[in-house]
Amino acid sequence: MSAAEPLEFDLVVLGGGSGGLAGAFRAAAHGARVALLEPAELGGTCVNAGCVPKKAMWLAAQLASQIGAAAELGFDVPAAPAFDWCEFITDRQRYIEGIHESYRRRLDQAGIVWLPRRGVLHDARTVVADDGTRLHARHVLIATGSHPVRPQVPGAELGGVSDDFFAWRRAPERVALIGGGYISVELAGLLQSLGSRVDLYARGPRLLSRSDGEVVAQLEENYRQLGIGLHFGYRLREVERGGDGRVRLVDADGEAGEAFDALVFAIGRRANTAGIGLERAGVATDARGDIEVDAFQNTSAAGVYAVGDVAGRETLTPVAIAAARRLMDRVFGGREDARLDYDLVPTVVFAHPPIGGVGLTEAQARERHGDSVRVYRTKFRPMLQALVDTPLCSLFKLVCVGEEQRVVGVHLFGEAADEILQGFAVALKLGATLADLHDTVAIHPTSAEELVLMG
Amino acid sequence: MSAAEPLEFDLVVLGGGSGGLAGAFRAAAHGARVALLEPAELGGTCVNAGCVPKKAMWLAAQLASQIGAAAELGFDVPAAPAFDWCEFITDRQRYIEGIHESYRRRLDQAGIVWLPRRGVLHDARTVVADDGTRLHARHVLIATGSHPVRPQVPGAELGGVSDDFFAWRRAPERVALIGGGYISVELAGLLQSLGSRVDLYARGPRLLSRSDGEVVAQLEENYRQLGIGLHFGYRLREVERGGDGRVRLVDADGEAGEAFDALVFAIGRRANTAGIGLERAGVATDARGDIEVDAFQNTSAAGVYAVGDVAGRETLTPVAIAAARRLMDRVFGGREDARLDYDLVPTVVFAHPPIGGVGLTEAQARERHGDSVRVYRTKFRPMLQALVDTPLCSLFKLVCVGEEQRVVGVHLFGEAADEILQGFAVALKLGATLADLHDTVAIHPTSAEELVLMG
Repeated sequence: MSAAEPLEFDLVVLGGGSGGLAGAFRAAAHGARVALLEPAELGGTCVNAGCVPKKAMWLAAQLASQIGAAAELGFDVPAAPAFDWCEFITDRQRYIEGIHESYRRRLDQAGIVWLPRRGVLHDARTVVADDGTRLHARHVLIATGSHPVRPQVPGAELGGVSDDFFAWRRAPERVALIGGGYISVELAGLLQSLGSRVDLYARGPRLLSRSDGEVVAQLEENYRQLGIGLHFGYRLREVERGGDGRVRLVDADGEAGEAFDALVFAIGRRANTAGIGLERAGVATDARGDIEVDAFQNTSAAGVYAVGDVAGRETLTPVAIAAARRLMDRVFGGREDARLDYDLVPTVVFAHPPIGGVGLTEAQARERHGDSVRVYRTKFRPMLQALVDTPLCSLFKLVCVGEEQRVVGVHLFGEAADEILQGFAVALKLGATLADLHDTVAIHPTSAEELVLMG
Repeated sequence: MSAAEPLEFDLVVLGGGSGGLAGAFRAAAHGARVALLEPAELGGTCVNAGCVPKKAMWLAAQLASQIGAAAELGFDVPAAPAFDWCEFITDRQRYIEGIHESYRRRLDQAGIVWLPRRGVLHDARTVVADDGTRLHARHVLIATGSHPVRPQVPGAELGGVSDDFFAWRRAPERVALIGGGYISVELAGLLQSLGSRVDLYARGPRLLSRSDGEVVAQLEENYRQLGIGLHFGYRLREVERGGDGRVRLVDADGEAGEAFDALVFAIGRRANTAGIGLERAGVATDARGDIEVDAFQNTSAAGVYAVGDVAGRETLTPVAIAAARRLMDRVFGGREDARLDYDLVPTVVFAHPPIGGVGLTEAQARERHGDSVRVYRTKFRPMLQALVDTPLCSLFKLVCVGEEQRVVGVHLFGEAADEILQGFAVALKLGATLADLHDTVAIHPTSAEELVLMG
C-alpha cells in the first residue's frame, strides 16, 4: 500500500486503554468504521498496571487481614500465614489475560480494525502507524493515557514506579514509598498487609490532599496502627545504594535514613503526548503537558478529541469510559449535547480499609457555603472489628448545606466503603437532602445503614 | 406502694426490643417521662436471638469462605480449618453484652425508668408489672415482639427453632431446616459454610417467596453448588427419633428420609400478644394474631400504639425503630403528620453471598405496569471469585417502568449486596431513572458499579 492511498475510516483511535476501547466500541455501535492503534496489551494502565492488578493485590491483602481476624476468632489458622506471591500472580495474570481475550473478541465482533502498532498524527485527519500504514478519518480520538514519573534527584534510578511494583514476585521486607497520593496510599496498605514493613514519605502535611481532611486523619491513624511509618513534609535530595545493595533516602538536610529493600516513587503521572504528532495536527497542550479539551472533549484541532489521562481532568478509568461513550454518542449518535458531567464524580482509594468520597469536602463546603454548612459524622466499629476487638474504626461523614440540608458531600473511611459509595453518588446527583436519607429505612446490621441514621 | 397510687408517666413502653427502646429514647428526647418494662435482656430478638448474633455467625461463615479462597490463591492455610465455635461464641456474647451495657447506660442517661418486669395492660392507661407495681400514662406503646413457632406435627418437640440455634456450641454434622423463608436461608448458608451438611425442606416451589424470582434462582443454584440439599413442595407429617438419637423427617406419603443430627424449624413467627391484657385495654388483633394498627401505629384503643413485630407489617428491626421514632415525633414532638412510609423498604437476607432488594420484583412490576416494564440484568463474577475460578456468579437486576424508565426495583445477589443496596434505596425514594444511574460515574473495580453501567 503506498503513502498516497490511506485506509479510510470514520474514526481512528490512538490508544487501546479503557477510554480508547470504550470510544471505539461505542462508535462502532453507532455504525462507524473504526480503527484502533495500540502497540501494547489492550486495556491500558487500568487493566495492565493499574486498577485491575492493584485491586487483585488489594484483595490478597484483604484476605491476609481476614485470616488474621479469623485466627483471633477461633479458626485454626496462622495469624500471618506464608503467602506464595508467585502463585497469586499467576492467578492474577490469568484473570488479566481473560480481559485481553475478551477485548480482542469484542473488537472482532464489532468489526473494529485493531493495529498493534504505535500511531503518529500526520495531520488532523491522518494517522501513520509505525509500519508505515496510513489511516485517514474525519474523526480522531487520542486516548494514549499517562505514565508514572520519577523525581529528578541523584539516584532516582534506584527506585521503581508503580509499573515496576506489578512485576514484583515477593513482598520486600522494608519498603519506602515516596508520595502522599492515592497510589502511594494503596501500595502502603496492601504491602503492609502482605507482610512488608512500609514507610511512606510525603511532601505535604497529610495524605490524599483532595479528600476530606477528617476522614484522611482517620486513615492515617489506622495506618499508624498497622505499623506503617508516615513521614510528612519530607524533601528528598537523593537516593544512595549501600554496600548491602539496599537503598537509603537522603533528605534536604543531608540526613540519610534507614535502609530499604525496595523503593517506589508514586509522585504523579504525566500524559503520554510525546512523539505522537500533536503539533502537526494542531493539538494544543497545557502547561502540565495535558491535552487541552473543552467540555465536549474537543481539542484545539477540529475533529480531534481526547479522553482519559491524556486529557488530564479526573484521571479515572470510569471517567475516561464515560467521556468516550458520550463523545461518540455526540459525534456518531446524533446526540448533540452529549458530554460527561464532571460534577459529583465518586472516587475510592483502595486503602486498608478503603476510603472514598463524592462531592465537596467539609473544607470546600465551608469555603463556598460558609455558615450554612452542617456536618454529621459517625465513628463506629464494624461488627467484625468489634468481635476481634481491634481499635480500627470506620468514619462516615455527611456534609450538608442550607436550610433544606442538601447533601453536598459524602465521605467514607472503613470496610465496604468502596461498595457503599456508588448508590449514594446517585442520590447526590438527584439532589438528596438529609431528610431523604432519613426517610429511607436502614438495612441492619450493615455499615451502610449508618449513612441514613446519622444526624 | 398501694394499687391506688400508680406511678405517673407520659409514656409506658411494653417491651425492650429495638422498637420499644427506640420509642422510649425518642420520647425522652422530646421531654416525656418514660417507663419501659422488659423482663428479659434489653435489645429483644434483634440483639439477642436475631440480627446481631446471626450476623456474627454469618461473619464467621464469611471468614471460612475467605480462608477457602485464600488457600486456593497462595496462602498457606488449610482450605477448611478447624473452627472453635465456643471461642467464637464467647466473642459474640461479649459483643452482645456490650450492646446491653450501652442500652442500660443510655436509658440511665435519658432518665428512663426501666423495670425488669413483665407488664400487663390493666386498661388503656394503666400497666401492671408482675411485682404489682402500677404505672399510669396517657400513652402506651406495645412493642413486645414475636417468637418463632413450631409446626403441629408429632415429634415437633424433637426440633428446635432459631432461638435454640443460638445456644449451639458446635456445627452439627447433618442439619435439616424446615422452611423456605429468610431465616432458613440464612441458617443454611452459614451452617454449610461452617462445616455442616445442610438439607432445607420448603413447602413452596422456591426460596424467599417475596424476593425477585430470577435472583432467587441464582441463589438456589449457588446453594446447590455449595452442597446444600434443597427440597421443594415438601409436606412434613412427623418427626421420628431413631435409636442412634438422630432424627428423621417423615413426609406426607409416610416416606422417612435420612437421619439428621439437628433439626431447626424456621416456618414463621407469631406476635407476642398472649397474656398482656389487650382485651382489657380494647386493643384489637387481626386473624393472624398481630395487633391492628393504622398508618400512624394507632391501635384500636386511643392512646395505645404498637410497633415492630407485634404489629405484623414488615417485621424488620429498622422498620420497628423508624416507626417508633416517627410515632414519638408525632405524639411528643408536635410533628402531626409524622409516620413511617412503608414504601420502598430495602431488605437484605444474609445468605451466602447475601441477597437483597428494594421496590417491585419483576413479576410485581409486570403485573402492575404490563408492557411498559423493562428489565436490565448483569451476571458477573466478582474479581475474587474469578481469581479463585469458582463458578459463583453475582446477579444484579434493575426493573424499570415507563418511557422515562423509572427504576421501580433493584434486586441484588452477590458479594457486598448487603452494603451496596442502601444508597440505591435512597435513589429509588428520590425517583431515580435509568438515565440518572447512567449519569453517575462508576467506581472501578467494584460490584456496585455494575448498577450504573447496565442497560
